[in-house]
Formats: sequence, C-alpha cells, structure tokens
Amino acid sequence: MFGARCLLRALRSCSSAPCPGHKPSAKLSVRDALGAQNASGERVKVQGWIRSVRSQKEVLFLHVNDGSSLESLQVVADSSFDSRELAFGSSVEVQGQLVKSLSKRQNVELKAEKIEVVGNCDAKDSGFVHIHTPVITSNDCEGAGELFQVTPSSKIKVPEENFFNVPVFLTVSGQLHLEVMSGAFTQVFTFGPTFRAENSQSRRHLAEFYMVEAEISFLESLQDLMQVMEGLFKTTTMTVLSNCPEDVELCHKFIAPGQKDRLEHMLKNNFLIISYTEAVEILKQASQNFTFTPEWGADLHTEHEKYLVKHCGDTPVFVINYPLALKPFYMRDNEDSPQHTVAAVDLLVPGVGELVGGSLREERYHFLEQRLARSGLTEAYQWYLDLRQFGSVPHGGFGMGFERYLQCILGIDNIKDVIPFPRFTHSCLL
Amino acid sequence: MFGARCLLRALRSCSSAPCPGHKPSAKLSVRDALGAQNASGERVKVQGWIRSVRSQKEVLFLHVNDGSSLESLQVVADSSFDSRELAFGSSVEVQGQLVKSLSKRQNVELKAEKIEVVGNCDAKDSGFVHIHTPVITSNDCEGAGELFQVTPSSKIKVPEENFFNVPVFLTVSGQLHLEVMSGAFTQVFTFGPTFRAENSQSRRHLAEFYMVEAEISFLESLQDLMQVMEGLFKTTTMTVLSNCPEDVELCHKFIAPGQKDRLEHMLKNNFLIISYTEAVEILKQASQNFTFTPEWGADLHTEHEKYLVKHCGDTPVFVINYPLALKPFYMRDNEDSPQHTVAAVDLLVPGVGELVGGSLREERYHFLEQRLARSGLTEAYQWYLDLRQFGSVPHGGFGMGFERYLQCILGIDNIKDVIPFPRFTHSCLL
Repeated sequence: MFGARCLLRALRSCSSAPCPGHKPSAKLSVRDALGAQNASGERVKVQGWIRSVRSQKEVLFLHVNDGSSLESLQVVADSSFDSRELAFGSSVEVQGQLVKSLSKRQNVELKAEKIEVVGNCDAKDSGFVHIHTPVITSNDCEGAGELFQVTPSSKIKVPEENFFNVPVFLTVSGQLHLEVMSGAFTQVFTFGPTFRAENSQSRRHLAEFYMVEAEISFLESLQDLMQVMEGLFKTTTMTVLSNCPEDVELCHKFIAPGQKDRLEHMLKNNFLIISYTEAVEILKQASQNFTFTPEWGADLHTEHEKYLVKHCGDTPVFVINYPLALKPFYMRDNEDSPQHTVAAVDLLVPGVGELVGGSLREERYHFLEQRLARSGLTEAYQWYLDLRQFGSVPHGGFGMGFERYLQCILGIDNIKDVIPFPRFTHSCLL
Repeated sequence: MFGARCLLRALRSCSSAPCPGHKPSAKLSVRDALGAQNASGERVKVQGWIRSVRSQKEVLFLHVNDGSSLESLQVVADSSFDSRELAFGSSVEVQGQLVKSLSKRQNVELKAEKIEVVGNCDAKDSGFVHIHTPVITSNDCEGAGELFQVTPSSKIKVPEENFFNVPVFLTVSGQLHLEVMSGAFTQVFTFGPTFRAENSQSRRHLAEFYMVEAEISFLESLQDLMQVMEGLFKTTTMTVLSNCPEDVELCHKFIAPGQKDRLEHMLKNNFLIISYTEAVEILKQASQNFTFTPEWGADLHTEHEKYLVKHCGDTPVFVINYPLALKPFYMRDNEDSPQHTVAAVDLLVPGVGELVGGSLREERYHFLEQRLARSGLTEAYQWYLDLRQFGSVPHGGFGMGFERYLQCILGIDNIKDVIPFPRFTHSCLL
C-alpha cells in the first residue's frame, strides 16, 4: 500500500518536466521558507504533506510540512481552491508568493497561486481492520516463559483447574490471533494491553504495556514490511505533533531539551538498514567495553542496541536477518546456510533501543511443520500449522511498544512516566 | 454538555417564528420525504442530523437523517453552501425543492435553497479524555468475588506471592481509576477488556469482554447522567449505521429480520425512566410467572429486565434508585428513609436486558467513610476515601458492555457471536 503510493509519486515526478517559456519557481524546503528574511512576494514552490486544514468562507488555511522542520508552513489560499482532496496527510505541491504574515504566530506564509495534489490521502483507504485480540489465551506465543497465569480467585465455585479446562495466561502478543484474521481481512491490526512477568527494574520494561501490532497478507519482503513500520512511526509522529503541539512542547522544554532537534532528525532522514551480521561486526570493532561480549549467535542487549543507534548517527536503524536459533518458530527461514538466519527485523531508536520487532512469517507448511517438531510444539500449535494447509499466503507483521514509542518521541527517560498506572515488579498501586 | 446543546436547540426553535408574507414550506420527516411519489419541485423543509458529507467542485452532497428512517435523505446543494460547520453530526434545517433524483440510489433528493445549522457538532469539543486504565489491579471494585487472580507462571524465578508484593486480579471495571483521573481531566473515558470469572453459560455473559466506561466531574443529577448515556447510545448507533450500512444490513437481513424496525423505534423515541420501586410494582402485577419472585429489596433478574422492556413498549428503559443494600459502597446515598436507595441507574434494552450500569458516586467524605467502615473495607480503600478529602466534587459515571451493545443493534442472540475469540467457562480456544 505504502509501496504503491511511493511508486506512483516517483512516476509522477518523473513526468513533470518544466513548462517551456515560464521561469520556474525556486523550490524551497519548509525549513528554508520559514527562515526567509524579509519575504516580499518571491515566487516559490514547496512540496510536503498537509498537517492541518482550516476552511473559512473566503479563505483556506493549510499547514504543510516536509519533515525538514517541526514547524509547518502556513499556506493561504482563495476558498476556490478548497476541495476534499486537500485533507490531512495528502501530499501537495504549492506554488505561490512568499509574503510576510499578518499573524503573530509566524513570520512568513505562502500565498498560493497553484496547489497540486500529488497523492491523495483518504484515511479510510488505509485498509487495516481493527481486531480485538484476547487478553486471556491458552497460547504461549513467544515460548518465552515470562508469563502470568490466570486462575479464578479462591471464592469461585468452579474448581480452579476446570474454569477454562486448560491452563490460561495473559497474552504476550496478539500476533497469532492476528495471523488468523489476516487470512480473511488481508491487513489487520490490534492495539491493546500485553503482559510480561519479567523480573526487571529497567527504565524500559513494564509488566503491563500497550502494543500496536499489525499483520499483512500477500507481503513478500522485509523491505515492504520496513516501509510500513517507518511509515507508521513517521505518520503517527506527524499526527501527534500536529494535533497536540503544546503537550509535546511541554515535554521537550522541561524534560528533554534538545529532543525537538533529535526528533526532526529522525523524521527527516530515511531509517537505516543493517544486517544482524553487520551489527555484530560493528560491535566487535567498537572501542567501548560491553558487559556482554558481542558474538555472532548471541542476542543483542540494550547496551549493544544503544551503541548501534549512536554509531549510525543517532537515527533509527533496522537490524535484519537474525540467527534462526535466537528466534521463535514462526519466523521465516532465509535458507542461507551455513549461517542460517530468519527474516526478522528489529527497529532500534535513539534513547530507547528496540522499539518495534517484526518478521516475515513461515508460510510454508513443511518448513513450519519441521520447526514445530524440533521444538516439541506440534500438538500445541496444530491449529496454527493448519493455517498453512488451506490458502496459505506469504505474510508478515510487527509489534510496536506504545509506551516506548511515547518515550522516544517525548524524550522521557523512564517508561513508568508515560503510563498512568504503571505495573512492574513489586508494584501494583490501586 | 449534551444538556446545554439540547437546551440551546429548544431555545432556538422557540424563537423561530415564521416570516410574514412567505408561504411556509411544508415540514416533512425524512421518512415522508423519501416516500414522496412523483416529486416535482414542491417546497419542503426537513430537519435532522448530517450523517455524511461529500463535497465536489461545483456541488455539495449531504445525507440527513432525523431518526424517522434508517435511510437518509440526500440533500444536493450549490458548493457555495459548503462550510466546515456542515460536518458529521451537526443538526440542520434544510429548505428546498423535493425533486426526482437522477441517481439510481434514491428516488428523490432535496435541492437545497437554504441550509441552517441548528447545532454545531465539532467532534473535538466532546472533551472526554481517553485513559488507559490497567488490566492488572490490586482492587476488587465491585466487591463481587467473581475475580480472576494473576500469578507469574511457575517458570518465573521471583517467588509467586512476591511479584507485585500484593495479590493482584484482572480488572472488573476501570471506574475507580477513572475517578482518580476525572479529578484532573473532568471528563474521562476508557475502552478496554474487563473480566468476570462468572460460571455462566448464558447468551449474554463472557469471561472477557469490552466495556466503554465514562466518568464525569461536576455532574449532580442522574438526569444529566442519563442524557449522556442516551446520547452515547444514539450517536454511536447513528455513526455505525452511517459508516458501515452494508454490515448492519447483512445482520438485519439474514440473522435478525425485523431488527431494522426495532432499531428505528429505539432511535426515534426518548428512552423511558422508571424507578426501581415502580419496576417492582410492575413485575408484581404481571400475569407472567417468574422463576424469581419479584420483591422490593431483591435484585432484578434477566427475566424481570426483559419483561420490563416489553412492558414499556420494547423501548430502552432506565431503572433508577436501587436499594442501598444491593449496591456497592461507592454509590451515592439518596437519604430517602425508610426505603433507603442509592442514585444508581441501569439501562435495559430490548433483546439484551441490562446494557449500561451507572451511578452518582458518593462524594461526601463522611458518608463514604461510614459505608467503607460498615463493609470492613476502610483499610483497602483509604486511597479512594482520600480523593474525597482534597477537592472532592459531585460526579458520576457508567459502563456499557460493548459486546452487548453489538448484540442490541445487530440483533445477535448469542454474545459469543459478536467477538472474534470468545472466552467463557470451559472454553479458551487459541
């Protein structure tokens, strides 16, 4: 979906040769336009995405941003320009005169003479169906063992072990349930509480936290998956910045000075991509002494993740293709002996480390059957294996920790400060 | 909030005397307008709420509904009428000519000559802040005992009873947490999973279900609370009908014939209000034999609820002022000896019975202190009592079962059919 839109955008820009006989307008970034001193009617062209629309009887106000600045450029247009296509998220090319603004809110504004919608953004078309995945589950998705068990309290008349007939736990991920639903709705997501009984006192772990999880059918490459992940991060962040600038400003000002610039940097640049193997090489060559010695086949720890992000210029970085032995049974085998990796991807971000984890899923029946057998999980996951027997499709998905996301964009050091009722080891207040 | 809008609407309609010298347009309901045979330009007036807006270069399409029909009337207007005030949910009075429609989708449409916005509807103004209330809690809000207990699974290294230091449970309601937050944000809501370890095989109970819960500060009467409840039901239903008519149609056609009319009936009429005492009188005089004999002081059972709804003409009915002895400690004492009731309200709806439960909360320190003491809960709820010591305000709230709501509007008999992964006694699949 994102892919198609990008392709279309690229094709369009290829075919837009300048008209002969007209002096082309100077193309400016939003940052440069905002910084223009003594604007007095120069003809310029600005490209970006609409962040807000205000339509009045005679005049239309747009705020356009291209990621070069956290502030948007105000575009003022005659109401005849008004159309439903000029909606939040649409990409536009605006030509007009850069003039001094009469309002105190900004120095300059762009008086539009021509507005071209490059790519429509009808929010209803995103096509992800919201699924309520259950909190109580008989699965152990990650096989991690860091589970909370659920039993009726002793006052209940049903014998404990018989309430659900099987042992049940608090969900650690809605992924497997989403995979079921993506077989009917193609693109699905869930947003809800997830649980880990981790005995951790860290600044980025909670026993109860929220995750946005997505699952996409007919998706065949990590590249496509990463595009959705990057798109989600950037679009959500732009929306937050656009809808509640005062709240963000408050955090940036009093808690995390400098975070505004870091965030601009993240939004402006493409996220980087390195392989797990490259990551280990980088860590091995690091002058820093790590508590855990980096080694191919071993998990990356927080200290490693933070080093990698710094090494990459304090910009978000995707790490892809992890050792098969490190990852759960459902991740797709890359068949790249002798190293033997799976098509997994983690997104590491400044300040937080791992923010999003995802993978292509093993959609091939016999591969999955063997992986389950080797892990002794065949019986427990027969229903999951069955999904590969009837209309199986290549697919993939990811989960993003919501509180870590808030930490990342707001610059909040401790995860307990971005949730109203934090639950962690030795604490469950109220 | 709803109250103010209604009042404003009433005042405005009082002052709108017909202009002298003009033949007034005939006022039609949407149902009558849609049913007009051979429309040929008659001047009419229609009042209702905007259910959709489509704005094109030269023309503006509105769909207006007044609850008299599930179908909306298409209003066609010159684009000069376009304004941001003509948004989803705004109430309008449209005058114009009723003409044959060129489209096959409808027979007639209203060619607008005058559109007056009676009441604006800016969705951002609703002012309810969304709070993530926790799933794991050390409270037992209802004191009901139908709780699931949460413990780390045996593989965890922390001794079980020490993970949170206190026994913890799955939430049965976010109310108490919302009350904390309403002390800062005035109007708050939560939407998430809640849990009851009820050993029930009924068609309206789940062990894991979703609730919309709201809490409103500075609210002093059940009347105001019921207005919000009725507004929520009607607005949400109109939104569902407007955004996914095909899905609703499918259920109504194949699963619940006749439901369309029942729903129209619910949307069109004001919900009724009876007291618990009146309800018991009605039940006592019923010719029907109940399994549980109705009696003042005893709880209403499903059979009673369904009878009451039928008795009231198959329309939603609020039952208010329940015996104090039946309800939890936090409900506001009506001080109406000798009966002694609390300001509680349940909304009963056709097909389902109890859909929403709410109350004014006891905001008076000494009243609450005594209630807690009598229940032996003083120590456990000291933090809650403290909320009444510092800046206490009259407030109230309610919770609506989301799956029961879906049952009610779609006409689905079994609650297990409106959730993708139902959890109930003896069943926790996947």
